[in-house]
Amino acid sequence: KTLPYKQVMTHSQYDYVKSFEIPDPCLPNCWPVVRIDGKNFHKFSTTHNFEKPNDDRALKLMTAAATSVMDLLNDIVLAYGQSDEYSFVFKKKTKAYNRRSSKLSSVVVSQFSTSYVYHWKKYFPDLELQYPPAFDSRLVLYPSDKNLRDYLSWRQVDCHINNMYNYCFWKLVQSGLTHVESQERLKGTLSGDKNELLFSQFGINYNNLPQLHRKGTVIIRDKERSTNHLAKIAR
Amino acid sequence: KTLPYKQVMTHSQYDYVKSFEIPDPCLPNCWPVVRIDGKNFHKFSTTHNFEKPNDDRALKLMTAAATSVMDLLNDIVLAYGQSDEYSFVFKKKTKAYNRRSSKLSSVVVSQFSTSYVYHWKKYFPDLELQYPPAFDSRLVLYPSDKNLRDYLSWRQVDCHINNMYNYCFWKLVQSGLTHVESQERLKGTLSGDKNELLFSQFGINYNNLPQLHRKGTVIIRDKERSTNHLAKIAR
Amino acid sequence: KTLPYKQVMTHSQYDYVKSFEIPDPCLPNCWPVVRIDGKNFHKFSTTHNFEKPNDDRALKLMTAAATSVMDLLNDIVLAYGQSDEYSFVFKKKTKAYNRRSSKLSSVVVSQFSTSYVYHWKKYFPDLELQYPPAFDSRLVLYPSDKNLRDYLSWRQVDCHINNMYNYCFWKLVQSGLTHVESQERLKGTLSGDKNELLFSQFGINYNNLPQLHRKGTVIIRDKERSTNHLAKIAR
Amino acid sequence: KTLPYKQVMTHSQYDYVKSFEIPDPCLPNCWPVVRIDGKNFHKFSTTHNFEKPNDDRALKLMTAAATSVMDLLNDIVLAYGQSDEYSFVFKKKTKAYNRRSSKLSSVVVSQFSTSYVYHWKKYFPDLELQYPPAFDSRLVLYPSDKNLRDYLSWRQVDCHINNMYNYCFWKLVQSGLTHVESQERLKGTLSGDKNELLFSQFGINYNNLPQLHRKGTVIIRDKERSTNHLAKIAR
Repeated sequence: KTLPYKQVMTHSQYDYVKSFEIPDPCLPNCWPVVRIDGKNFHKFSTTHNFEKPNDDRALKLMTAAATSVMDLLNDIVLAYGQSDEYSFVFKKKTKAYNRRSSKLSSVVVSQFSTSYVYHWKKYFPDLELQYPPAFDSRLVLYPSDKNLRDYLSWRQVDCHINNMYNYCFWKLVQSGLTHVESQERLKGTLSGDKNELLFSQFGINYNNLPQLHRKGTVIIRDKERSTNHLAKIAR
Repeated sequence: KTLPYKQVMTHSQYDYVKSFEIPDPCLPNCWPVVRIDGKNFHKFSTTHNFEKPNDDRALKLMTAAATSVMDLLNDIVLAYGQSDEYSFVFKKKTKAYNRRSSKLSSVVVSQFSTSYVYHWKKYFPDLELQYPPAFDSRLVLYPSDKNLRDYLSWRQVDCHINNMYNYCFWKLVQSGLTHVESQERLKGTLSGDKNELLFSQFGINYNNLPQLHRKGTVIIRDKERSTNHLAKIAR
Repeated sequence: KTLPYKQVMTHSQYDYVKSFEIPDPCLPNCWPVVRIDGKNFHKFSTTHNFEKPNDDRALKLMTAAATSVMDLLNDIVLAYGQSDEYSFVFKKKTKAYNRRSSKLSSVVVSQFSTSYVYHWKKYFPDLELQYPPAFDSRLVLYPSDKNLRDYLSWRQVDCHINNMYNYCFWKLVQSGLTHVESQERLKGTLSGDKNELLFSQFGINYNNLPQLHRKGTVIIRDKERSTNHLAKIAR
Repeated sequence: KTLPYKQVMTHSQYDYVKSFEIPDPCLPNCWPVVRIDGKNFHKFSTTHNFEKPNDDRALKLMTAAATSVMDLLNDIVLAYGQSDEYSFVFKKKTKAYNRRSSKLSSVVVSQFSTSYVYHWKKYFPDLELQYPPAFDSRLVLYPSDKNLRDYLSWRQVDCHINNMYNYCFWKLVQSGLTHVESQERLKGTLSGDKNELLFSQFGINYNNLPQLHRKGTVIIRDKERSTNHLAKIAR
């Protein structure tokens, strides 16, 4: 609020509508994880001519926005990002916003969103942002440490599978195939087939590709230096 | 996703974590209302030297961001804004995002957030945005038309009360009183007292102040022209 | 509790587990409806040799149990029952148990359950109850009066369809067909076909069958006489 | 349902009301605990002249009803009861009723309720049940084993505190004091004071009182013998 000082509210006949707000606290002793995800980013990446299969500027902008979220919310202990999504892990015992699910979820996605636009020009100095994109967010609770690790593994496996497919697809397209032909060529291929295709046809050893593309980005809080300073680790 | 075509996911041992996402559909036949609200906007308005008690540029930027939300989501029929908050009313029968509460709430606040930063320079051409602000959002369901009208009245009464207080407060400050003295002067005053203070001390007739300040802003969809074009009505 | 007077609780290191109870208030201004439903009542009706297709003693016992629920909870304005299910409609503005969903739902099904066993001997004086049956319950919110009427119509259409099918099925079985043969005979038949079958083969005019079987039972509160006395209307 | 075979439902204009049922699955990998609790059992125990401070017949009837619940629901691994309440712990990974919270909670309280009345005459052979009582139920999720243990400790501490108070209170009443006088005598007393009062005034060594009264009852499933047979351990 822009009010300098909190004043006592006059009660009106309309105040009863406040009672329609249903409480939504997170179950205690669970890891709250907020995942944000780009809406219609296929169109967004096309409009802004993102490099294929990965645009390092776009990935770094995502990480800058995620870092801004962690700067705002000290109870986020770790973030993991890939492609147009980022997951934020809150402390199991966080009391932030009284663990209200809608608050945690909305503040994360809002801070991420404003930061994405705010930092755009730093990562795309020569490219004007054409329109403001949107992200969605959801909050999921993970009861055990194993569940949390498996969640992060789930997102990293997703990164790996999509990245391998995308490398093959765009290399085929760049070699002259149409989108449909490339898609047909990859239909039914397994991981080994794609490795082989990249190596035999394009001389690419998948395991030598940048970790940033194959594994995504983890952001952790560097407690040694300060609670507000973050060490970024691209794995 | 930046994937050009949806591929069949390989199933992994980690997929089970998806089952921790609990469905959160809105109850049918209720008006879903998403309200966004600025976080720490007292500090934000101070940092950016917002004019007191109202900064028309800031209010118009809020409305530009809200319009962007209505452009994105056709099922929003009406928006009401004042100060650093905006409420978005979805059609009672909206099927947008399968009525998933977290989707509706997060996409609204995210589109609002990116648009706020994106349009900043249009409304503050001479003032650099110092840092990306954040908004929170919540979704509330209103079963009857009367409940919805009362909700909007509730927000508008809030606008009126805060605006009258703010006008008095800042006029007192601008006349030389400290913040504390102004606050003391207004303690316990009723609406009539504030009207009198404005008139006798500053020659201001409250009812002649801009409707934009006293009543807030309503955005409605102009069905006559196009479903995508919005008529903005500042009351 | 059996404690005569509430004493101040000593606080222990375990009290924190209370915080895992998540609030579950009903949205205001909606009709809370609790429906109870017999578990495994096909087996229960077979074990107790219920008359087919309808056992009036069993139906009346259901209504006695439902009446006991309405005697306990004054905010229930209407109940509708058929077969092994009963629906209880609370006042839209009920404050009973602070509108806590789990309380409303559990007290209804519990009072229904104890009353079912308690009143058994009155309706089955010559038949010992072989084992205690179970019912489940759920609470559903209906925002508008039309939704509530449609809910009741939905249950009554269900009554009608099941009753017509059951009459045909059991008349065929009683005429010598096996269960499978009767089922085959009815496969794909429409309402008109079943009417015709009952009339031509068994001389039964469906519309002359007891309203209790065709339409179910409505229980309303007789405000004229007393808030605790109920008028039972079998339609 | 009493329908012998499931038939294809005819669709009606009212079927849409089914969509108002909101899913309520338990979060995976948490211990679902259902606690049932007697409603107005002070009145119930007075009406039926329960012995004070503990009526062993009433406690054993509670345990018989709880055992009936465990016989019905194989995924309950443990139950703990004291006074007029019982807690049922489901397996962390139970799939019973698809983990639907309202189903688990309602079937437990219903089976408990019917069994309580059904078994009444066995434990009170000379005392007619005067009216059918009601219980409420709630389902709470506990993420970790420690949380579950602490939950059970919480209920057992509650048992201990109430039991010690009740012993003192009723001994004082039986010695001639009024209810109000007994209450006054105990006001502000700590555990040690009550121990001393019992010993010095009534010659009772609290630690020699029956474990059933001091610690409550645990029911565990005896896997050695059969999944349906339960070993009852009164601690």
